[in-house]
Amino acid sequence: MTAPLANPSIDLNADLGEGFGRWQLTDDDALLSIVSSANVACGFHAGDPSTMRRVCELAAERGVRIGAQVSYRDLAGFGRRAMDVPARELADEIAYQIGALEIFARAAGSQVSYVKPHGALYNRCVHDAVQAAAVVDGITLAAGGPLPVLGLPGSRLHEAARTAGLPVVAEAFADRSYTAAGTLVPRTEPGAVVSDPDTVVKRALGFARDQAVTSLDGRRIEVAARSLCLHGDTPGAADLARRVRGELTAAGVRVAAFA
Amino acid sequence: MTAPLANPSIDLNADLGEGFGRWQLTDDDALLSIVSSANVACGFHAGDPSTMRRVCELAAERGVRIGAQVSYRDLAGFGRRAMDVPARELADEIAYQIGALEIFARAAGSQVSYVKPHGALYNRCVHDAVQAAAVVDGITLAAGGPLPVLGLPGSRLHEAARTAGLPVVAEAFADRSYTAAGTLVPRTEPGAVVSDPDTVVKRALGFARDQAVTSLDGRRIEVAARSLCLHGDTPGAADLARRVRGELTAAGVRVAAFA
Amino acid sequence: MTAPLANPSIDLNADLGEGFGRWQLTDDDALLSIVSSANVACGFHAGDPSTMRRVCELAAERGVRIGAQVSYRDLAGFGRRAMDVPARELADEIAYQIGALEIFARAAGSQVSYVKPHGALYNRCVHDAVQAAAVVDGITLAAGGPLPVLGLPGSRLHEAARTAGLPVVAEAFADRSYTAAGTLVPRTEPGAVVSDPDTVVKRALGFARDQAVTSLDGRRIEVAARSLCLHGDTPGAADLARRVRGELTAAGVRVAAFA
Amino acid sequence: MTAPLANPSIDLNADLGEGFGRWQLTDDDALLSIVSSANVACGFHAGDPSTMRRVCELAAERGVRIGAQVSYRDLAGFGRRAMDVPARELADEIAYQIGALEIFARAAGSQVSYVKPHGALYNRCVHDAVQAAAVVDGITLAAGGPLPVLGLPGSRLHEAARTAGLPVVAEAFADRSYTAAGTLVPRTEPGAVVSDPDTVVKRALGFARDQAVTSLDGRRIEVAARSLCLHGDTPGAADLARRVRGELTAAGVRVAAFA
Repeated sequence: MTAPLANPSIDLNADLGEGFGRWQLTDDDALLSIVSSANVACGFHAGDPSTMRRVCELAAERGVRIGAQVSYRDLAGFGRRAMDVPARELADEIAYQIGALEIFARAAGSQVSYVKPHGALYNRCVHDAVQAAAVVDGITLAAGGPLPVLGLPGSRLHEAARTAGLPVVAEAFADRSYTAAGTLVPRTEPGAVVSDPDTVVKRALGFARDQAVTSLDGRRIEVAARSLCLHGDTPGAADLARRVRGELTAAGVRVAAFA
Repeated sequence: MTAPLANPSIDLNADLGEGFGRWQLTDDDALLSIVSSANVACGFHAGDPSTMRRVCELAAERGVRIGAQVSYRDLAGFGRRAMDVPARELADEIAYQIGALEIFARAAGSQVSYVKPHGALYNRCVHDAVQAAAVVDGITLAAGGPLPVLGLPGSRLHEAARTAGLPVVAEAFADRSYTAAGTLVPRTEPGAVVSDPDTVVKRALGFARDQAVTSLDGRRIEVAARSLCLHGDTPGAADLARRVRGELTAAGVRVAAFA
Repeated sequence: MTAPLANPSIDLNADLGEGFGRWQLTDDDALLSIVSSANVACGFHAGDPSTMRRVCELAAERGVRIGAQVSYRDLAGFGRRAMDVPARELADEIAYQIGALEIFARAAGSQVSYVKPHGALYNRCVHDAVQAAAVVDGITLAAGGPLPVLGLPGSRLHEAARTAGLPVVAEAFADRSYTAAGTLVPRTEPGAVVSDPDTVVKRALGFARDQAVTSLDGRRIEVAARSLCLHGDTPGAADLARRVRGELTAAGVRVAAFA
Repeated sequence: MTAPLANPSIDLNADLGEGFGRWQLTDDDALLSIVSSANVACGFHAGDPSTMRRVCELAAERGVRIGAQVSYRDLAGFGRRAMDVPARELADEIAYQIGALEIFARAAGSQVSYVKPHGALYNRCVHDAVQAAAVVDGITLAAGGPLPVLGLPGSRLHEAARTAGLPVVAEAFADRSYTAAGTLVPRTEPGAVVSDPDTVVKRALGFARDQAVTSLDGRRIEVAARSLCLHGDTPGAADLARRVRGELTAAGVRVAAFA
């Protein structure tokens, strides 16, 4: 068992800018006072240019790191429908999105500091080595240097990123259950989602201080995550995120973007 | 009357990459052997990411300058339907497109060197000061430094660009008729389009060597254009463009991207 | 001055189904218990197929009439950006939308009973005779028989509809100010919107019982409207709509779809 | 072995109207003089409203049957990228497309007489029972009565259609190789496509007269197809299609839409 960290520190990331035109979804203003890393939608599943600009400006102003939340091209499905996109095409679509966001990040005096796939692409890249490699190709194409890839530890995406020489950052979910093997319990199974706020907070503390969590079947498992993913698209989500941050800070955990 | 230039030089620009996914339109490969400046579609009226990438790679390889051919968001109308887009929204949409193209230009070892609006946006920005200013705002937002704006001499777009400190580059059309006032004869009027290849070639030479053209009513008018716009989306267009370039070169006119 | 109607009756219409995929906007369930006519978005400015189906099912179940809320093709701008769409193209786009909605209306045991343009198209068709005629062409193409057109009295749209033999239904806005000439005060002018709920209710009663309203400069003007447009896309909108209906009914006005 | 049919008759179907706005793809005019059934694109992978209208008008004029060529919502990928669309959502998207096409078919004095999925959806519905059932649900929702489903014999789609009481029509491909089991050789395998025109014609005759074809490994296999799928989106495709029809007719095979 690992001992608690001496000077624990954790990154908090959330999906932001997920409205589109007339439609709003995420409470961007509130979340940008809570998280240290903003996964900004780039227009393929959500995120019109004006929203991207505004989120980048706010993020830069408040010292929140900007990441490209890249997706399949699927506004109608909010990027939640897995697609068999040929590798080259997918790589180019990823690069396109990063490029578009980079403009607004730079204009705001910041930059795109990492990439995190969204929705169905995120899930697909846990197991699909071809699409994972395509996403990494797109990142490499878009980025001058080594752009970190935020994702699930043990995913094909992280594997492909490492192979390509990109830094990887592992994230954990305080509101999702884990198997004894350290993977997420699929949403289709009972108990997959942790909805009790107190438990969510407790688990967030566990990830940050002990690099560990209790699995669905009651075992303590180690999860070496440098970032916690908070959700911001449901009622009350921003409040819970604020509380998580508050209790982390109160417990001596420094909330800061990953290095 | 101005005397013929001693060492005449002209830029040739054409719209490129105007397919979308399965659909092809412009003969990109042929045109990239003819023009010195490529107006690359950025995905809003045409231009999928893979096409953008391929055109940028070819352009870079052949020393053709890359420009962002920005448009209203209108794939169904190919950007030919004027839209009353609010200024801020339009500026942000322009910046988004430039950013996306910049990624592919940079990945190819080149960069976005100028901006030219497409279709209805081009026409609107001849007279509409508000949209012209919005386009310039978008360019300024996107570009770190002063990015040249290619367009119609005397247009509101050029006026707005100058006001904002951006370089302007005037273009002429060898296949369009001019009024005595030096403006284009609207396409809705008889004689607006010059279709005889010999006449097109002759007029191209006139623009390049004498900075002049004969108006529809037979007068010689001066047109100080540093670039000629060639068309590449109709049958035979690439052949005519090739001939224009050939005869310009044969007549001692250097074909080169504007400085 | 017209005397109050003996058996006053009024239609209440509202825009419905204006979400898209993940994004929600209108409180469809609440509004379908209030209005007698549902302007259902058809996918061009909002309205995915599943939302269209659900709204049609609910409307049919509750005896609410279904109308096609047709729009420019502009999801990013929510149909609020006027577009110069060629007449034939516009007519065909209108027919396409009506056809798509008709399927869901029929499947729910109902039908598309009228058409009302949305947003920028609505505003454009007040003055633009060409686009108004194109919309009417699209309706005529789509409908086997004479489909009523809901819109502003005195609009070019109603003129074109009459010319084509389509019934017209005039609507009034209880939350908008009127000029002495009986037209709407443009939103850009002060006092254009009536926000006090009591005043909105009072004006709704005036339209329904007296076919009249007080203009912004204090005169009583006659407005022969058979339908009142209620709004459902702002916080509290459904509550106000419910109150309007309640007070109309309490005052002896029958709320029913126009004949 | 089955004896040659006494009065052989076959339907010829082709994908039509697969342009979008400025982009053209299929030679609709030529093909509508050749085929007996037109699979008309409905706007999700291709097919703008004006193209749909024009194709329907031409088809009706020439007595060609109109079918709805339904697809995933994927203009950028031309419907060639399989998508994990939830069943209900997929059903509603199918119904939407059929409804839109029905308007233009009816306006032309015809109707939607059958449905055929396009591209990745076609391929997916060969094996995926869930999506196949969803497509059939969409068809059932859209159609008042039993609308035939054109597809691959033995597919899950045909299975689901039969279960739902919809007529099925089997099609064969003269330009594709068959396995000894009577299924198509996957395009990724060598010899999958038959490109020699003489062989294509010979195989077309075989399907029509003998209900049989020679498999890739040289065996005679029976294929009970009532329709032949011709392709119209490659250079020379219309010419080959014309020749197939000519030789079928010359050989005494009647070309006519399936009953």
